[in-house]
Amino acid sequence: MAMRIPDDLVEKGKTKIVLVVMDGLGGLPDPTTGKTELESAETPNLDALARTAALGQIMPVGVGITSGSGPGHLALFGYDPLVWNIGRGVLSGLGVGFPLEPGDVATRLNFATVDGAGNIVDRRAGRPSDDENRRLVSLLREKVKAPDGVQVFFESEKEHRLALVVRGKGLSADLHDTDPQQTGVPPLRVQALSPVAEASARVVQDVLDQACAALKDEAKANAVLARGFAEYAAYPTFLERFKLRALAIAQYPMYRGVARLVGMEIQPPPASVDGVVEALKERWNDFDFFFLHFKYPDSRGEDGDFGAKMKAIENVDRLIPGITVLKPDVLLVTGDHSTPARWKAHSWHPSPLLVASPWTRPAGASGFGERECAVHGELGTFLSKDLMTLALAHAGRLAKFGA
Amino acid sequence: MAMRIPDDLVEKGKTKIVLVVMDGLGGLPDPTTGKTELESAETPNLDALARTAALGQIMPVGVGITSGSGPGHLALFGYDPLVWNIGRGVLSGLGVGFPLEPGDVATRLNFATVDGAGNIVDRRAGRPSDDENRRLVSLLREKVKAPDGVQVFFESEKEHRLALVVRGKGLSADLHDTDPQQTGVPPLRVQALSPVAEASARVVQDVLDQACAALKDEAKANAVLARGFAEYAAYPTFLERFKLRALAIAQYPMYRGVARLVGMEIQPPPASVDGVVEALKERWNDFDFFFLHFKYPDSRGEDGDFGAKMKAIENVDRLIPGITVLKPDVLLVTGDHSTPARWKAHSWHPSPLLVASPWTRPAGASGFGERECAVHGELGTFLSKDLMTLALAHAGRLAKFGA
Repeated sequence: MAMRIPDDLVEKGKTKIVLVVMDGLGGLPDPTTGKTELESAETPNLDALARTAALGQIMPVGVGITSGSGPGHLALFGYDPLVWNIGRGVLSGLGVGFPLEPGDVATRLNFATVDGAGNIVDRRAGRPSDDENRRLVSLLREKVKAPDGVQVFFESEKEHRLALVVRGKGLSADLHDTDPQQTGVPPLRVQALSPVAEASARVVQDVLDQACAALKDEAKANAVLARGFAEYAAYPTFLERFKLRALAIAQYPMYRGVARLVGMEIQPPPASVDGVVEALKERWNDFDFFFLHFKYPDSRGEDGDFGAKMKAIENVDRLIPGITVLKPDVLLVTGDHSTPARWKAHSWHPSPLLVASPWTRPAGASGFGERECAVHGELGTFLSKDLMTLALAHAGRLAKFGA
Repeated sequence: MAMRIPDDLVEKGKTKIVLVVMDGLGGLPDPTTGKTELESAETPNLDALARTAALGQIMPVGVGITSGSGPGHLALFGYDPLVWNIGRGVLSGLGVGFPLEPGDVATRLNFATVDGAGNIVDRRAGRPSDDENRRLVSLLREKVKAPDGVQVFFESEKEHRLALVVRGKGLSADLHDTDPQQTGVPPLRVQALSPVAEASARVVQDVLDQACAALKDEAKANAVLARGFAEYAAYPTFLERFKLRALAIAQYPMYRGVARLVGMEIQPPPASVDGVVEALKERWNDFDFFFLHFKYPDSRGEDGDFGAKMKAIENVDRLIPGITVLKPDVLLVTGDHSTPARWKAHSWHPSPLLVASPWTRPAGASGFGERECAVHGELGTFLSKDLMTLALAHAGRLAKFGA
C-alpha cells in the first residue's frame, strides 16, 4: 500500500504547535503608498518574529484559484481541499455545535430582504443583531413543519447567518444554491444537480417555502437564501492523522465548524480577540496543537476598508507576546486566503506565512509582509495542505522517510 | 464528480487577455558579462512593465525537463502536456491549415542533404527559401504515389520544413522518427513502436522511400527526415474550457497549428513582427484572448548567436507600447521554454514570466530578466499549465472555489 505523507511518518511528541490564522490576511498594495494592509500596519511583534522565522507563501488550492474559507482552512489543517471538498452547510452545522450525523444534509442560510415583487434587495437583511437572529430562528422552529419522513433543524449563527439541517433516509446534497449572489432577482428554486437528488430538492424547497412564509411579515428578514448544500461524512481526525490533541479557539461558528470536522476539541467562543489568547493560556497544558482564528482582517477586507483591515491586523499583533510567552515549539502565522481591501473579496493571491521555531534559516527579512515573504523566504511558495507537514517537522514529530 | 480546475470555475466576462510568447526566451549568462540575452537586451518597455507586474518563473513540463515547442505551447494554453501529448506532425499539419480528420497520421518532415554514401550532411538542406520549398513539395506531390488503401498529402511550411499527412483506416502513429538528430549517419528506417503500428510503418516507409527517390537529383534537398509522428484527435476548445474567444497571431505555421488544435481562430500570417501587433489592433474588438507568437529569440538561440537573440528580444520590446495602448486587462509575457544561445538548443531552465495587471504585488524588480523573475517574484516557480488559471484570475473570470 502506498505510504501516506505525512501521516505514516508521524511520531508522538511533547512539543506544542500554535497556528494563528488571520482570516483573509493577504492584501494588495495601496496605489499611493505601494504598501499592502499588512505592510502598512504597525506590527512590531510579528516583525520581530519574522526576522528570525522561516518565511514563505502558501496557496490554498492552487495557482490562480480563489478559495472559500472552508477549503482554505481544511488545507491549513493538512486536508487537501480538492480531495476533502466540503460544503459550507456542513461547516455551518458543525460550527454551531449541532451534532450532525452521517447522511445529514446541511446548508448555510442567510436571512435576506425581498421586495413586493419577490426580488432580493439585500442578501444579508441589513445584518441583524445576534439577538434578532435568535428571535427569527425561534420563529422558524415554531412555524416550519418538517415534511413527511424527515426531521428539520434550524440553528442560529451570527448576524444574518443560520444553518439548516435536514435528516432522513436517502437524502442527497447534490443541490444548487438558491442564493443567486446578486440583488434585483428572486431567489433561485432548489434544483437537483443529479437525478438521485430530485426528491431531496422537493423536500428542501418545501422547507424553504415554509420558512419564507413564516418570515413574510418581517420588516427586513423576510426571506432566506441557501448556499453550500453538503452531506456530512466523518473525516479522519487530527489525533488519528497527526497524533496531536488539538484545540480550536475561534469567535465565529464556521471556523469552529471546520475544526470540529477534523476532530479538534472546541473551546467555547471567546467574547473578544483578547479572550482568544486568554483561552490559549488556560488550556495550554491540555493540548499539543492550538488553532487560533481571527476573523476581522477578512471582514474589513471584504468591506473594502483598507485602514480598518490594518487595525484588525494590529489587534492581532498586539496579542503575539501573550502567545510567545508560553514558548510554543512552533508558531505559525498566516491566512486561509487573501482578501485585499482593494478587491473587496477573497482573492487568489498567496498568503504570507511565518514559521517561528529555533529550526529555521532566516533569510534577511526586515518584517512580516507579503513582499518579505515572497522575496526573503526559505520556504518558497507551496500549497497550504503541506503546512501541517512543515509544522510537524519543526516540532520534531516526523520520522525520516526511508533509511 | 470531481471538479475540473479551472474549467468548472470559469465565468463569462468582458475583460481581455494578451499572451505574448517570445519563443525560447530564457537564456544563460554570457561568461564575460554575467548577463543573459534578456538581461543584456535593451528592453525599456518590458522593464517598465516588470516594475509593477507580478513576476515569476514557469516550467513547461517539470523540473529539469526540456520541452519541445508543441508541449511548451499547450502548457501555456492550459493543457497539461503530460496529458495532452501531441506530436509535432499534427501541429505541422494544423499549422499549415490542412484540414486534418480524426485518425489521420501526420508528421513533420525536413528537407535534408545526404552524401553519396547515404549519410546525412545537413539536416536542413541549407535552409531552402520558401519558394524553393514550394517547388520541392510540388515535385513530391507529382512523383509520390499513395500506397494501396491510403491517401497521402504533402504540405509546405517554411524553409526546410513540410508536413506529411497519411489518411486511411486503422493507421497508427506509434512510429519512431527517421531523423537521427545527427549528421554522418543515414536516416533511420521507420520503426513501429508497438505491434499495432507494423503496417503503418511499412506504409510510411514506402512513402518516404518514394520521396527520397523523387528528390535524388536535387543539389541540396535530396532526402527527407521525419519527426513527430502523431495521430489527430480533437481537443476541447478554448471557448469550451475558458469561455474565451481566442485569436492566434503567429508568423510560423507550427504555432498556428497548436492554436488551431485548441480551437483558436487563426489570423492570416503577418509578414513581419510589426504585422503581429497591427493584426492585434485590427481584431481587438472581436476577441477576448490574443496569442501573439514571436519566433526569432528561439531561432537565434538555436543558432548560438547571443547578440542576435538579444536583438530579436529588443524587436519584441519595441512592440510593447502598441499592445499596452489597447489597455488589455491582463498582459502576459513569457516563453514556451528556454533556448540559451550558449546551449544552442532548447533547455530545461524555467521561463521568465511577467503578468501585468492592476491586481499585482510588485516586489521590487528593477526590470524584466531571469534573475529578477526568480528573486523578485510574488508568483514563485510553477508549471506553465497553470498560467491560464492565473490569467483568468487576474481577468476576474474565475469564481471562488468552495464557500
